Amino acid sequence: MREQIIRLRKEMDKNNIDAYLVMTDDFHGSEYVGDYFKCREYLSGFTGSAGKMVITSKEAVLWTDGRYFIQAEEELNGSGIELYKMGEPGVPDIFEYLESTLKEGECLGFDGRTVNAMIAQKLERILLRKSVKIVYDCDLAGEIWKNRPERSHSKAWLLGLCYSGISAEKKIGLLRDVLKENLCDAIIITALDEIAWLFNIRGNDVEYNPVLLSYAIVPENKDDNILLFADKRSIDGDVEEELKKLSIVICDYNNIYNYIKKLENGTRIMLDKSGINSMILKNIPDGVKIKNVISPVMQMKAVKNPVEMENERTAHLKDGTAVTKLIYWLKHNAGKMDITEFDVVQKMEEIRNEIDNYIEPSFATISAYGSNGAIVHYEPQKPGDKILPKGFLLLDTGGHYMEGTTDITRTISLGELTDIQKKHYTAVLMGNLRLSDASFLYGCRGTNLDCIAREPLWKMGLDYKHGTGHGVGYLLNVHESPNSFRWRINPSQINSQDAVLEEGMITSDEPGLYIEGEYGIRLENLIMCRKSEENQYGQFMKFEVLTMAPFDRDAIDINMLNDDDRKILNCYHRTVYKNISPYLNAEEREWLENETKDI
Amino acid sequence: MREQIIRLRKEMDKNNIDAYLVMTDDFHGSEYVGDYFKCREYLSGFTGSAGKMVITSKEAVLWTDGRYFIQAEEELNGSGIELYKMGEPGVPDIFEYLESTLKEGECLGFDGRTVNAMIAQKLERILLRKSVKIVYDCDLAGEIWKNRPERSHSKAWLLGLCYSGISAEKKIGLLRDVLKENLCDAIIITALDEIAWLFNIRGNDVEYNPVLLSYAIVPENKDDNILLFADKRSIDGDVEEELKKLSIVICDYNNIYNYIKKLENGTRIMLDKSGINSMILKNIPDGVKIKNVISPVMQMKAVKNPVEMENERTAHLKDGTAVTKLIYWLKHNAGKMDITEFDVVQKMEEIRNEIDNYIEPSFATISAYGSNGAIVHYEPQKPGDKILPKGFLLLDTGGHYMEGTTDITRTISLGELTDIQKKHYTAVLMGNLRLSDASFLYGCRGTNLDCIAREPLWKMGLDYKHGTGHGVGYLLNVHESPNSFRWRINPSQINSQDAVLEEGMITSDEPGLYIEGEYGIRLENLIMCRKSEENQYGQFMKFEVLTMAPFDRDAIDINMLNDDDRKILNCYHRTVYKNISPYLNAEEREWLENETKDI
Repeated sequence: MREQIIRLRKEMDKNNIDAYLVMTDDFHGSEYVGDYFKCREYLSGFTGSAGKMVITSKEAVLWTDGRYFIQAEEELNGSGIELYKMGEPGVPDIFEYLESTLKEGECLGFDGRTVNAMIAQKLERILLRKSVKIVYDCDLAGEIWKNRPERSHSKAWLLGLCYSGISAEKKIGLLRDVLKENLCDAIIITALDEIAWLFNIRGNDVEYNPVLLSYAIVPENKDDNILLFADKRSIDGDVEEELKKLSIVICDYNNIYNYIKKLENGTRIMLDKSGINSMILKNIPDGVKIKNVISPVMQMKAVKNPVEMENERTAHLKDGTAVTKLIYWLKHNAGKMDITEFDVVQKMEEIRNEIDNYIEPSFATISAYGSNGAIVHYEPQKPGDKILPKGFLLLDTGGHYMEGTTDITRTISLGELTDIQKKHYTAVLMGNLRLSDASFLYGCRGTNLDCIAREPLWKMGLDYKHGTGHGVGYLLNVHESPNSFRWRINPSQINSQDAVLEEGMITSDEPGLYIEGEYGIRLENLIMCRKSEENQYGQFMKFEVLTMAPFDRDAIDINMLNDDDRKILNCYHRTVYKNISPYLNAEEREWLENETKDI
Repeated sequence: MREQIIRLRKEMDKNNIDAYLVMTDDFHGSEYVGDYFKCREYLSGFTGSAGKMVITSKEAVLWTDGRYFIQAEEELNGSGIELYKMGEPGVPDIFEYLESTLKEGECLGFDGRTVNAMIAQKLERILLRKSVKIVYDCDLAGEIWKNRPERSHSKAWLLGLCYSGISAEKKIGLLRDVLKENLCDAIIITALDEIAWLFNIRGNDVEYNPVLLSYAIVPENKDDNILLFADKRSIDGDVEEELKKLSIVICDYNNIYNYIKKLENGTRIMLDKSGINSMILKNIPDGVKIKNVISPVMQMKAVKNPVEMENERTAHLKDGTAVTKLIYWLKHNAGKMDITEFDVVQKMEEIRNEIDNYIEPSFATISAYGSNGAIVHYEPQKPGDKILPKGFLLLDTGGHYMEGTTDITRTISLGELTDIQKKHYTAVLMGNLRLSDASFLYGCRGTNLDCIAREPLWKMGLDYKHGTGHGVGYLLNVHESPNSFRWRINPSQINSQDAVLEEGMITSDEPGLYIEGEYGIRLENLIMCRKSEENQYGQFMKFEVLTMAPFDRDAIDINMLNDDDRKILNCYHRTVYKNISPYLNAEEREWLENETKDI
């Protein structure tokens, strides 16, 4: 048995804990987590981005999903930890496992800061009827973790008004209006991107997410201070000054839990249970009234303001130019020089690094050649196979710029394609084009429109097992709620994950197709919701395509496109050429002109 | 003040009722109600199909919707009853009115059999906090109604197995399985079409709905009798015998309320609160446990079995032939002889009456010429204007056959059309064709697909303010739940009104466009959900178009159709010609051949 587990069990013994639960979350439910928070990896040795563990005196079990079965098997080999493959027949989920394992009077422990409040409430419902105790405040993994990495405390920085579009003062005022309307005394905000958006600050505490590790409490009363719980080393200079002007007081990062414990009876607190950790909720005294809502900050943040909208166009012009250069480079060099998937990632970063106001990648670039393209969450390893002048390279990449966040996927043909490859590419392209060209009445959600993107594939008996699109932040998380394109309706999450599309919301439009063992195709543009005409029938809406890079004309089966598809494609390609060509060299420009000619 | 209101107020005085509420419902929430139930019409003189009234000692108020504003104003003229126009700015709804009108200690009365249980619960929530009393069991309108028409007691009849496809015995068995799974002792069914479907009986108690006025209670235990509360005069001969064989005991229609009052403590009763009246719910003793579910009978009934599916094809062949003959007749006679909208209705009925197994219209035919077509719920009056050889006639009509229920709309061009008329017709046609041609994965609901029908109109900044489609019964109600096509998602009604589309469900596909003061266009086919291929992506689904009648080629702007639209249209027209032509005379056949030629 792995030494870390043995030491954890001793600690469990000392604390009378019969089962210890370890999640992968940080304290904020972030998509990516810093090294400090990687307890599950420390205990198990499994390095995947998703997984949960339960350790009892007899067993140690790790759950992970299909993306990581092979990797987890390898990494857990010899550790004494059993792998539970999520979703496989006969495999109990974590709730079923705990329900059947724990006996009356026994005790489940976890660090409540790393367990979402809704999950903890479900555990309570299941276990309390069995008279199992739950201890929320034990970070046993932390106790035994020698040489735990320090918690990140990068310097926060201010996002100027020319980028944010609305001052923090005004945003706070709008939030206070919401609190007033809802008769709430304060709101607790724990989502890192919401805090960054609200105060117009950015940080570098989470990989790919330019945010600051922090919690915030905003009181309704203008005369009361706002509390920002953060590492004091992160905040100095002009940031400190600016926050002071906004009556924001910096408190110690961990102090929020004590602060919450002392909330006065009768206080009315607004929060979003689906987003906070269970320790926050648990520490709120019984006499405090909780108003559980979909975070108003999430909603405000998703609707980009006019300055953000204009900046996003700039960011996408820059990023589209970079991706277009990359495609040119790849098409002209694959087969001539040794290029691996990883080389493509590096080349992409090299090109972006030349760009003014480029900050960092918005996620780990997926560069997947041939059959690797069929692995949806593929990450290229260094070294890797050489890219040959045949088949497809799937490139999913994005950057953070001062002017916004990009996310683009192009599937690049290298050499001759088969007829079926072209048919598949074209069906995915038709879905992408048609969705971006949709007209709809205000009130529509992504679930109303998703089928427009899938219909060309569905007509061929094909599909992709992921959503068609996700919301995208402004120099914030590349995946953000509440807007999306998906077709399955979850009534309880309809407003938090499938919101009505508002002018200024940015969503990805990324249908795909994955032929196992052969290739993957995905075509992704970001599209921004816009108002069009208003008349007796209501307010009509449309999308503006932000992403500016050509589709691959060599991969298109022209006969599959109907007149409308051709019009949309030609119109998009003309716009791409007009916008991008001034930033290319002569060879690139000549090539792009040909690539974007009318079909 | 109208004499009926004066007499009602005396009755209210006697019973200490301060406000009396009158709805338009029968005791079963039927869409159409018999004369016996028309208390609101008796009291007010207003004959529209929708309306609610409240009478107090000082006021008498009637609410109705936009369809009936003009008619209600005329009919209420001089009655002393005030008209409240629903949905107009500043007009309180019935809940707001009662809340502001009734004072502490006062009393609201109504006949609970005519008020839906959910509405009554909302009234309770609003009024009990004001300490207003509610009396559920006073039929004061009935008390004062001299010469009230007798309640209908038409003869019930049996639907043979060759039409129903599944024996009543088997259906009851399936329902008992559901009760068992849900640990329920019995189910209360009050929806007339559900009772008719379950026992394979039909009646003639409600206009356009071939049902029997009745309630049913089905116990889970096979050894216990099923109770059917109905007028004993309705049931005799082979129906009586057949029901006896099924251990169905006939009880007096009104006796259900007493029966329910005596349910034993601890009994577990299944019912669908959204479908039952408030008196049923109110009479259930407190010790009885209620399992509120979406009616399992509604769900089973909506999924047509293979025999019903095959029969429906026959019914639509017959009905499509009838409508095709009507179109031929109209196109060749409009302008040559005097034809009014009402004549078209009569001609339609004449043609259908020639057909074997035709029973009756499934709803009041809408025959709307010119600007009348823009009135969505138009009913032609006799006499009316002559139909001229120009513009559109909108014909929405359907029939009940032993082989099923039909519902079809065709918009018929008479003479030359303007370019914009053709554009409008073609956009509606494109929506109809594309929805009927949709491919989708099992799990999709109508809200996922609705936009396919609206997209061509939305792209032109146009829309229709009604759903794209409703479920249709088998020789039952022409409007039935839970399947539909609509785009607004109501999370609380998603499974009862926007269910996952199952093989065998029949839904209408009826986009439209209404240009006020000019014309209306609607094109409606019934489409039946079918399975197509199942593969690694899941179970794919498609639609089979049941309705068989040509679209109007004179009204089509061919340039608007893309290649796919043309293919779908030509394929449909070929099928129409192949199926219908054998039943036409030589002139009709020649005409149809031309009408259905490839475009």
